[in-house]
Amino acid sequence: MKKIEHLGIAVKDIDKANKRFAKIFGKEHYKIEKVETEGVITSFFQIGSNKIELVAPTSESSPIYKFLTNRKEGMHHVAFEVDDIYFEMLRIKKEGIRLLNDKPKNGADNKLICFLHPSDTNGVLIELTQTVR
Amino acid sequence: MKKIEHLGIAVKDIDKANKRFAKIFGKEHYKIEKVETEGVITSFFQIGSNKIELVAPTSESSPIYKFLTNRKEGMHHVAFEVDDIYFEMLRIKKEGIRLLNDKPKNGADNKLICFLHPSDTNGVLIELTQTVR
Repeated sequence: MKKIEHLGIAVKDIDKANKRFAKIFGKEHYKIEKVETEGVITSFFQIGSNKIELVAPTSESSPIYKFLTNRKEGMHHVAFEVDDIYFEMLRIKKEGIRLLNDKPKNGADNKLICFLHPSDTNGVLIELTQTVR
Repeated sequence: MKKIEHLGIAVKDIDKANKRFAKIFGKEHYKIEKVETEGVITSFFQIGSNKIELVAPTSESSPIYKFLTNRKEGMHHVAFEVDDIYFEMLRIKKEGIRLLNDKPKNGADNKLICFLHPSDTNGVLIELTQTVR
């Protein structure tokens, strides 16, 4: 694994959270993106080589909507950049850690992604992400 | 802010969590450290230029002990590296975001640290950290 690609933070109101985090970071977000398939709207801040992704639900069927009804706003997932997602998925599976998807899914920004089962990772929702070139 | 310096994960059993995350990352932790003043034992993994800090309580008065009695294991705090913690603390305070400590505290590894009030940061416990040279 190469680095933390991004840290995902679940928020209720993307506009309010955007203004808040612009104050915290002392800079504006560099993009906002709706992901219709996931029922979310996202906003990204660049902090050095890492990104912070604010995620708000746009539909009640969104996993983020469910997260926010069960818990408060806060850190939701952490994504690690990998060179070869197929290799890492196989390696991690062999270690007895369950994956939430057996094949990589298409993520935003031309990426392949896979989530690990949080019950096998001390409650941390971990995403693997590989950029497809 | 320069990068995510580390992501802190609250765990109950440091040895079990260490073995689990060694499997996830495909590498061993590089150090383990008891912080008596905070009532915690910590274990660090290096992922590129970012660190993952596992934190387990060693005393019932530890903030991590309280976190784990109220919530499950999982992400606890995120630390951002800054060049000048005094400047950043003043800047953030002026933006109306409360700090948990008015003066920087001494952290492990020759660092000055300060936490922001999670009620002002959408539930995310944010740490500022500056290395003292």
